[in-house]
Amino acid sequence: MTEAIAKLLDQVRAAKPLVHHITNYVTVNDCANAALEIGASPVMADDIDEAADIASISDALVLNMGTLNERTVTSMIAAGKSANAAGVPVVFDPVGAGASGFRDRTAAKMLNEVKISVLRGNISEIRSVSGLAAETKGVDASGTDIARAKEAGFTALELARKLGIVVVISGAEDVISDGNNIVYIQNGHPLLGGQTGTGCMCSTLIGAFCGTARDRPFTAAAAGMLCMGVAGEMAFLNAKPGNGSFRAALHDALSRLSADNILKMAKIREA
Amino acid sequence: MTEAIAKLLDQVRAAKPLVHHITNYVTVNDCANAALEIGASPVMADDIDEAADIASISDALVLNMGTLNERTVTSMIAAGKSANAAGVPVVFDPVGAGASGFRDRTAAKMLNEVKISVLRGNISEIRSVSGLAAETKGVDASGTDIARAKEAGFTALELARKLGIVVVISGAEDVISDGNNIVYIQNGHPLLGGQTGTGCMCSTLIGAFCGTARDRPFTAAAAGMLCMGVAGEMAFLNAKPGNGSFRAALHDALSRLSADNILKMAKIREA
Amino acid sequence: MTEAIAKLLDQVRAAKPLVHHITNYVTVNDCANAALEIGASPVMADDIDEAADIASISDALVLNMGTLNERTVTSMIAAGKSANAAGVPVVFDPVGAGASGFRDRTAAKMLNEVKISVLRGNISEIRSVSGLAAETKGVDASGTDIARAKEAGFTALELARKLGIVVVISGAEDVISDGNNIVYIQNGHPLLGGQTGTGCMCSTLIGAFCGTARDRPFTAAAAGMLCMGVAGEMAFLNAKPGNGSFRAALHDALSRLSADNILKMAKIREA
Repeated sequence: MTEAIAKLLDQVRAAKPLVHHITNYVTVNDCANAALEIGASPVMADDIDEAADIASISDALVLNMGTLNERTVTSMIAAGKSANAAGVPVVFDPVGAGASGFRDRTAAKMLNEVKISVLRGNISEIRSVSGLAAETKGVDASGTDIARAKEAGFTALELARKLGIVVVISGAEDVISDGNNIVYIQNGHPLLGGQTGTGCMCSTLIGAFCGTARDRPFTAAAAGMLCMGVAGEMAFLNAKPGNGSFRAALHDALSRLSADNILKMAKIREA
Repeated sequence: MTEAIAKLLDQVRAAKPLVHHITNYVTVNDCANAALEIGASPVMADDIDEAADIASISDALVLNMGTLNERTVTSMIAAGKSANAAGVPVVFDPVGAGASGFRDRTAAKMLNEVKISVLRGNISEIRSVSGLAAETKGVDASGTDIARAKEAGFTALELARKLGIVVVISGAEDVISDGNNIVYIQNGHPLLGGQTGTGCMCSTLIGAFCGTARDRPFTAAAAGMLCMGVAGEMAFLNAKPGNGSFRAALHDALSRLSADNILKMAKIREA
Repeated sequence: MTEAIAKLLDQVRAAKPLVHHITNYVTVNDCANAALEIGASPVMADDIDEAADIASISDALVLNMGTLNERTVTSMIAAGKSANAAGVPVVFDPVGAGASGFRDRTAAKMLNEVKISVLRGNISEIRSVSGLAAETKGVDASGTDIARAKEAGFTALELARKLGIVVVISGAEDVISDGNNIVYIQNGHPLLGGQTGTGCMCSTLIGAFCGTARDRPFTAAAAGMLCMGVAGEMAFLNAKPGNGSFRAALHDALSRLSADNILKMAKIREA
């Protein structure tokens, strides 16, 4: 898996996939920069008059419900269907699932009406989407749910099998499953959790990899998570202490990340 | 006051209050990171279908009218009323009050229909909200109004008494009043005024403190202003010259700020 | 031209023009900070209830269609007309023109209904707006179109003459024309293209200069592009390698940019 990911990183940098985002206004700038840093070209377009058009000419579509509203939900569904029709992979990030009925209904609607390739969230969000008991606290995973993370591998596998998609649960150890296989990624750094947008950026990276490896969403999902984990470790090594310096160093790391970094630093366990 | 604030900082970091924001899209990322850095958990949700729900389960609500629109004004009012019903403190930041009739009407509506705990703005915004002559220039305080800042203590006291809330006037010297007492804070650095978002971040910090000290909005308001002032001084000491480096250093300082920094660096005058 | 620009930079820093933006939520924070760094005061206001009012009291209006929606298009037209009536110069940035029918229709509508002072985009956007064959790829210029950049001087001149406005085509070499004259600027650094928002920030800078030199949009446009180019070079010299450090250094450079830097570093060719 590690070698496949390292190779895929080079392919993304060469192919420059166009990644269409309909996402929240909190972390959208970090997502746009993360896309550029990994070698993709981001486009953000959320109006109903163009969302479907742009999705159809993109290499991947990332739908993120961080700051939902009725207008953009309609655009997300339209863009998702358009992407499906054009064979464009769709990444769905159910930010804050469990925090309100509106978010739960939207996540359910998205999974019903759009064929998702990769679903990525924290343990609270994924449990909530799965219909398992969850204790979402705003957009962060709850303590109780984090303790449940031991079962994350099982949760991801079950949900992936049920929905027929790739499921990613982000956490201290990331879990990725396609319903048959599970990959655990132990890269990363606690400081990533102290930054807004690191989850959203993972979804962006997965979108970039999906856009270049359309028929391999499992590898693409693992690639996105591994790149963020390795970049987080590189950032920690290079940054002065503090949240602002870590943020700049994280973007530095993403822009400088090489296949070689991946091969040397990956801590992946396949099951 | 300083010791109470130092203690409250430790309490916020332990309690991790959930701070719901309905805010502008210019500085929202800085606000989310400032919330995380001070120890809170931010959630941004502005749709009418969830704003009231999320406000009711939060520890504090921050309403910021930096980029108002009709849709979000409706959500702000609904969230404010929901917060009031649930006993959740509300911080109101009337960005750009005085710059348009729409902003003036919205600020008045907010103060009429929602019970605010803390109102925070620059001298032009607060004069405008107070019905005093003001010369707002966009979202920055005007020169004439800054000259009037000598009277800021009196303005804050009067308005706090009239509205029965805590009023904060940000400036070279911050003024906080609950209608009976006035606190002046002399911490800070001129470079804070050269960054977009430092005022908005103050309101976020006040929200975090209010969420942990629900019955002490006066102390919470002073705590938010003092933390930003001290962090600004720490940032100046640590940053290379320039606006981008200062910004990173400011976020570094907020994330590393300790009770000890507060105790050593506070320049507070109580009256 | 270089001396006129150096002088104008000092004038902007003294005058602190109010620059009203109706812009996208991806790069709006960078634009607000860039405005402050060059010496202007930014205000972002996109609701129909205040857009025209605020445009009329501003020194310049910047319209950027990076994340268009029906609501903000209406506000842009209203603000544009209000600016026209008040003699406030309007800068138009047709982000992603060519990427969707919605963007093409909006760009055409804007040029029809609002008197623009300066139009700025990359070669794909400007070709698309001109009705020339273009291959926009999302919001970035396509490879084919970049190869066509040799003809950029001619394209800018023709379009400027046809529309009676100043046209700026950003690229490795920036081209500015008022229909009679052409200026080429060779400052800049390839890393500027690896950051989201550097194009949008150019439009902001042009807005700041237009706000101070209302009757000289050609010089103002060249000033904005030159300042970004010189700041990009200064940032490259000062930054650690990587996208995050370059971004901070770019904002540092904009905030520290002096008339002296301009005089020493400008690489301008007039034709």
